[in-house]
Amino acid sequence: MQSFHPPQRTLMGPGPSDVDPRILQAMSRPTIGHLDPRFIDLMDEIKALLQLAFKTSNQLTLPVSAPGSAGMEAVFVNLLQRGDKAIVCQNGVFGGRMKENVERCGAIAVMVQDDWGKPVDLNKADTALREHPDAKLLAFVHAETSTGVCSDTRGLAALARAHDCLSVVDAVTSLGGVALEVDQWGVDAVYSGSQKCLSCVPGLSPVSFSDRAVQCIRNRTEKVQSWFLDMNLIMDYWGSGTRRSYHHTAPVNALYGLHEALVILEEEGLENAWARHLHHHKALVVGLEAMGLAMLVEEAFRLPQLNAVRVPTGVDEALIRAALLRDYSLEIGSGLGTLAGKVWRIGLMGHACNRRNVLLCLSALEDTLLAAGADIHAGRALKAAHAFYALKHP
Amino acid sequence: MQSFHPPQRTLMGPGPSDVDPRILQAMSRPTIGHLDPRFIDLMDEIKALLQLAFKTSNQLTLPVSAPGSAGMEAVFVNLLQRGDKAIVCQNGVFGGRMKENVERCGAIAVMVQDDWGKPVDLNKADTALREHPDAKLLAFVHAETSTGVCSDTRGLAALARAHDCLSVVDAVTSLGGVALEVDQWGVDAVYSGSQKCLSCVPGLSPVSFSDRAVQCIRNRTEKVQSWFLDMNLIMDYWGSGTRRSYHHTAPVNALYGLHEALVILEEEGLENAWARHLHHHKALVVGLEAMGLAMLVEEAFRLPQLNAVRVPTGVDEALIRAALLRDYSLEIGSGLGTLAGKVWRIGLMGHACNRRNVLLCLSALEDTLLAAGADIHAGRALKAAHAFYALKHP
Repeated sequence: MQSFHPPQRTLMGPGPSDVDPRILQAMSRPTIGHLDPRFIDLMDEIKALLQLAFKTSNQLTLPVSAPGSAGMEAVFVNLLQRGDKAIVCQNGVFGGRMKENVERCGAIAVMVQDDWGKPVDLNKADTALREHPDAKLLAFVHAETSTGVCSDTRGLAALARAHDCLSVVDAVTSLGGVALEVDQWGVDAVYSGSQKCLSCVPGLSPVSFSDRAVQCIRNRTEKVQSWFLDMNLIMDYWGSGTRRSYHHTAPVNALYGLHEALVILEEEGLENAWARHLHHHKALVVGLEAMGLAMLVEEAFRLPQLNAVRVPTGVDEALIRAALLRDYSLEIGSGLGTLAGKVWRIGLMGHACNRRNVLLCLSALEDTLLAAGADIHAGRALKAAHAFYALKHP
Repeated sequence: MQSFHPPQRTLMGPGPSDVDPRILQAMSRPTIGHLDPRFIDLMDEIKALLQLAFKTSNQLTLPVSAPGSAGMEAVFVNLLQRGDKAIVCQNGVFGGRMKENVERCGAIAVMVQDDWGKPVDLNKADTALREHPDAKLLAFVHAETSTGVCSDTRGLAALARAHDCLSVVDAVTSLGGVALEVDQWGVDAVYSGSQKCLSCVPGLSPVSFSDRAVQCIRNRTEKVQSWFLDMNLIMDYWGSGTRRSYHHTAPVNALYGLHEALVILEEEGLENAWARHLHHHKALVVGLEAMGLAMLVEEAFRLPQLNAVRVPTGVDEALIRAALLRDYSLEIGSGLGTLAGKVWRIGLMGHACNRRNVLLCLSALEDTLLAAGADIHAGRALKAAHAFYALKHP
């Protein structure tokens, strides 16, 4: 068996996204012990940088030592006990995963359904909150990775608070790519992933809990069903002060990478990063529409970092993706669940969100669709994108 | 905030251990998508390499996308249902963590206690199995990282099988460092960690389940309480064939590292790696004893890769460790639980298990102990180790 040498891809799918070479370099620095004083310093810096990224002063802000799915699970297993009730808004794949998590905690999930490709309806959420005054939390996805829809997190968190409910926000794809203000919006628990708009490698899940959420965790009458994800134990490990209780062995080098990703984000400025995502998203959409392709999501609710594009009639979407990968080493994503076969998902996340990638994607997609005999307009997409960039300086 | 530049340590604690530079380099290669055909090939190779390392043909052999503690939890949440009974042998910290996991599954843990520093007593385990014919599994730690004791995994697994019980083995510190034969010994479920004798960075947990264990998982009447660790879902993701169901986003670059670690192990040969651990362990012990220090564990049950050494009377063990880190950039471990303050734990794991490190450790420890006024023999340790190496060629 030989060493593995991956090809150099351009990652414009739903994540992982292109990783900044600075992050790859950071991860390859020598491993130190997870109880080393220098490592404790690193943990403190990561906490502070995550607080900046989430716009929060929450003390309990840290990366779970596992992918975003584990971050989601960490939130639910810590906040819910058996028999609790949770209202879950679903408008894509990840609301369904929330339901799975709620139910595996022995809790009851009250589902509020919206169409895939539409944002969560605040009226429906409000009705559910009124009908279930005993609900402990309201959970929803800020940035639905399966559809490219952004939901009104500020409004939903306010609704939850008005009904004395905790708000739980899936920010896997939103963190670093679009406005997210944990404190100002009154979000109680939020989880994200390292491999989306932070441009880090996959494997870590930043989470943050408000004081209300921490009280809820401390007041539990049953132990958290997961030892590995028990925040009562993890907060002692990541806590401030010199006495830290050993919990598990932290993924040291992955944390080097996350630290570097957050340093890069701080250097750019969070608001600048949001603006950059919006800018290149607009250029991409201008190009796609000039080609004759249609976006799945109405303009007002589109996520800049995740663009769901309708597959033209008669086109086999998988063949197009395979050709893009083979001929351009370019990865875009397929549709999930009810949208399988119907959309592509084009990511513009973090380091991958730049002019070069927008132009590459438009050019490669046009070429590949024409070769497949698709009925699109030739020769317009790049022109339109170039014209957009000429007018609008980032 | 600046980029983080860790110091170059020599890691001779209980893990993480020194990481081979080839592994750090592998991890810094470009990220590819977790559904990329080339990544699927990588997954298949990792499975095959893990089967070699575990000496098993178990189909369900893969790395859990999180540290060893999550591997432990993955085994228990998949095998146990509420109300099940598990016999847990405890002779150190990690048997206690197993109990926590069993109980958080809503199952009953029947504890078999042995002194810390002694191996699990087969007679006691046999008695417990006779007294609890309804027990579903017998769980124990192969290599107790907290004490440096090796327990008779072959004998315990055979006992479990004789009583129609599944055997669950914690091989976090044993895999790659000492004989472990999953198939030949009839082990049903085993979990390990990437950061011990595999010399990879921390963050992944190789696991393997026998066909009996897989049947048990498939026949569950309740869902696994953890979505993230549900092997019914994970086996579809890591399964063979071209149709793989998306589960979570795999930690791509960490898996590059694990793959390289396993390639290195295959190049050396598993049995050669075991022999190398034993060889340098003997040299270390010869030196430590020449210095006048005493090992915690009786010779027959010592783990080569984890050496628990008694702290001489009157010595503040934490000051010695701090001095080793400060003056030699050398990390050794402290005692845990009831052994806190009483022992050091010197690791000789994987890439860190070599002659240079043995001599560095003996030299640095002697110097530091003498400076602290400890009553040890000066000038003997290195001589003894050199003499050992001169006689015994690896």
